[in-house]
Amino acid sequence: MAEEKKIPYKIYLEENEMPKAWYNVRADMKNKPAPLLNPGTHQPMTAEELGGVFCDELVQQELDNDTAYVEIPQEIRDFYKMYRPSPLVRAYCLEEKLGTPAKIYYKFEGNNTSGSHKLNSAIAQAYYAKKQGLKGVTTETGAGQWGTALSMACSYLNLDCKVYMVKVSYEQKPFRREVMRVYGASVTPSPSMETEIGKKINAEHPGTTGSLGCAISEAVEVAVKNPGYRYVLGSVLNQVLLHQSVIGLETKAALDKYNIKPDIIIGCAGGGSNLGGLISPFMGEKLRGEADYRIIAVEPASCPSFTRGKFAYDFADTGMVCPLAKMYTLGSDFIPSANHAGGLRYHGMSPVLSQLYDDGLMEAVSVEQTKVFEAAEEFARVEGILPAPESSHAIRVAIDEALKCKETGEEKTIVFGLTGTGYFDMVAYEKYHDGKMDDYIPSDEELAAYAAKLPKID
Amino acid sequence: MAEEKKIPYKIYLEENEMPKAWYNVRADMKNKPAPLLNPGTHQPMTAEELGGVFCDELVQQELDNDTAYVEIPQEIRDFYKMYRPSPLVRAYCLEEKLGTPAKIYYKFEGNNTSGSHKLNSAIAQAYYAKKQGLKGVTTETGAGQWGTALSMACSYLNLDCKVYMVKVSYEQKPFRREVMRVYGASVTPSPSMETEIGKKINAEHPGTTGSLGCAISEAVEVAVKNPGYRYVLGSVLNQVLLHQSVIGLETKAALDKYNIKPDIIIGCAGGGSNLGGLISPFMGEKLRGEADYRIIAVEPASCPSFTRGKFAYDFADTGMVCPLAKMYTLGSDFIPSANHAGGLRYHGMSPVLSQLYDDGLMEAVSVEQTKVFEAAEEFARVEGILPAPESSHAIRVAIDEALKCKETGEEKTIVFGLTGTGYFDMVAYEKYHDGKMDDYIPSDEELAAYAAKLPKID
Repeated sequence: MAEEKKIPYKIYLEENEMPKAWYNVRADMKNKPAPLLNPGTHQPMTAEELGGVFCDELVQQELDNDTAYVEIPQEIRDFYKMYRPSPLVRAYCLEEKLGTPAKIYYKFEGNNTSGSHKLNSAIAQAYYAKKQGLKGVTTETGAGQWGTALSMACSYLNLDCKVYMVKVSYEQKPFRREVMRVYGASVTPSPSMETEIGKKINAEHPGTTGSLGCAISEAVEVAVKNPGYRYVLGSVLNQVLLHQSVIGLETKAALDKYNIKPDIIIGCAGGGSNLGGLISPFMGEKLRGEADYRIIAVEPASCPSFTRGKFAYDFADTGMVCPLAKMYTLGSDFIPSANHAGGLRYHGMSPVLSQLYDDGLMEAVSVEQTKVFEAAEEFARVEGILPAPESSHAIRVAIDEALKCKETGEEKTIVFGLTGTGYFDMVAYEKYHDGKMDDYIPSDEELAAYAAKLPKID
Repeated sequence: MAEEKKIPYKIYLEENEMPKAWYNVRADMKNKPAPLLNPGTHQPMTAEELGGVFCDELVQQELDNDTAYVEIPQEIRDFYKMYRPSPLVRAYCLEEKLGTPAKIYYKFEGNNTSGSHKLNSAIAQAYYAKKQGLKGVTTETGAGQWGTALSMACSYLNLDCKVYMVKVSYEQKPFRREVMRVYGASVTPSPSMETEIGKKINAEHPGTTGSLGCAISEAVEVAVKNPGYRYVLGSVLNQVLLHQSVIGLETKAALDKYNIKPDIIIGCAGGGSNLGGLISPFMGEKLRGEADYRIIAVEPASCPSFTRGKFAYDFADTGMVCPLAKMYTLGSDFIPSANHAGGLRYHGMSPVLSQLYDDGLMEAVSVEQTKVFEAAEEFARVEGILPAPESSHAIRVAIDEALKCKETGEEKTIVFGLTGTGYFDMVAYEKYHDGKMDDYIPSDEELAAYAAKLPKID
């Protein structure tokens, strides 16, 4: 590697090359994502109904399937400038290690204190709440990345932030909790005794360590019952994919700058926020017939909503207080077994991505934990960055695709999303090192039992 | 903040603007740093003597007080490209929060997995070891940043890495240990029962939780006794300051690009690796009479080597196996009280910086922990980045200087080094939040007792 490279190791956009508008992929979709339904009436949620839970401007973004570009307010662009543009990195060292003719790039979203891409939507949602004159926002967090991101955004805008953190994470990840405290957020272990739904869940399941669906129910209840508060969510929603399109827009601008055309685009998929954001502009070109790409969603074998779930209306939360969404789902009370990729444990999937997948516009694969951590460590040792377990799902498949190129001799260009860092996931790495990683995969019978409980909606 | 800024939030150099040579400030010093002495004979250490402990090419760099620029080998420049250039950030949000007319910039070295600037010298030292055909290197680590950095560098070059980690950190920072394991290093709690010095210290101080000086002694012993191994050190040494000059060179290039002339340059000082690197090119201009700057070293009040230590020859380690160095020191068996800025707990200070300080070319101030964490949190909430406690010492003084400008109305330009992130220091942040932070300052009597034990050398 002693010669100079024509493509830099890291492509950074200049500040004036950063996106000034988000891209709404729904505008180019022929089959739009199905509308959210009122859980009581099963009728499409109106803006007014949604306005009780979400900020007005975010409701508008949630329902708007037609506007292709939404201007990013200057205040949000200023915040983005504190930690963006994120680098598009050419993985020269990984390529050399693998001995592949493939060219591998990754968009690294981990260079900020939240440690992930979540901040892109957190600042947007906090901004619109502030603009509406609200006092604060409520949310849930599992692994803690979203809660941290929202705390940072709220602290910046001087907005109150109430986080319901899945109890098991609250207890096992005290450092994450402490980071949120640095940013002035209140963090409550969920299920708590502060909400009706929390009390109910605690009564029905004494000693429960909580779940994301349960924490969502609590956060929504608190937002709805407290004047001046709204609920915000870090994934799944259409508005989140809109905000996260900044990832894909920057990626595309960086590639275009060097005339690079990707063949394969890979991202990990939990609720879909990162994947949806990364692929948006590329999917747009594909939808408009301007270009073609292989787009691959990677999910954990322990929580395989795309690859083994149903495309159906389902509840977004355990308490069933949220609207129903049509999505690939394993059922709202599916709880994945011990699986350390905390951010990929959600039972459902973004309705936008679900529709695109159902329309055959993207692929999905599921991978096992041990193989994921093998890829994570291989990547860390040559590329330096210690990846989050979630992101490492994408690394696994990027390496697999690069190895296929090695066999065939094809010089494919692979781009994947490296959503974040694993500094708060060392317990999982320790289990991997000690050979105690869990590779449990749910059986067909188990999944069928959950699927049978899906709400019956035409 | 709705208008566009002329100076970007973050100044990134292009790859071709990155330094191609390190700058050796000793070349421009009229009073050179005093030579290292053989602990037995008290005569200057020869290259041959040092060669038993350090790699040959590093010995040469250690002893060379004359060559101003040392070319950075292409392999090291390639590694630098994976995580450098680091951004020079304009702290617009902090300035606004403080309401100061001062212009504040910080050079952020935390955007890599080691979480600090330590990687700059780790890759250089590992590279020269590899080039010499060695099997591996040994080192000590306290807080774990240096050990992590060295593990990363060794993993990249396929070199064995043995880390002696201060026992208290080994036990209290299992995550740091686990990161080193990701990179394939062996990590041993110090004092261990694997070395003569470790056995001796364990026998004399049963139940001791170790110290940096003791871990250094162990690592040196293992390097000297095992063929194909050498010892490497992350701070204090002249060679380390040389490698770390990349921080200052990038900073200066970024400032020059926008015609910015700093008035004050601030860095935290433990052993001096970051401060020395950051100020090198600026100090060079000052030494050559081309420019003038106020240069401020910030140290913890609990371990005040510059502000309350003696400028004298002292041992670098507890076991007294290392050469003697002339430096500002508190005495080699001074152990600071509970103080969470792990990287600033060293009893001595870089001989280069010690000489420059003694010559009146820079200032030093000491600050208390609680005030440091106040500054850290204030910074985190507006600038996003969660700073390491070490780095926060520099933040404290940068804020203090900016507030002085607010009083006087002066529009000074302040540059400080933000050496790293605090993700592995959340226990310290927790203590701060819970009001349990320790602000112990050693008494004059206490310091005098340690000073009385300094070796008597003319």
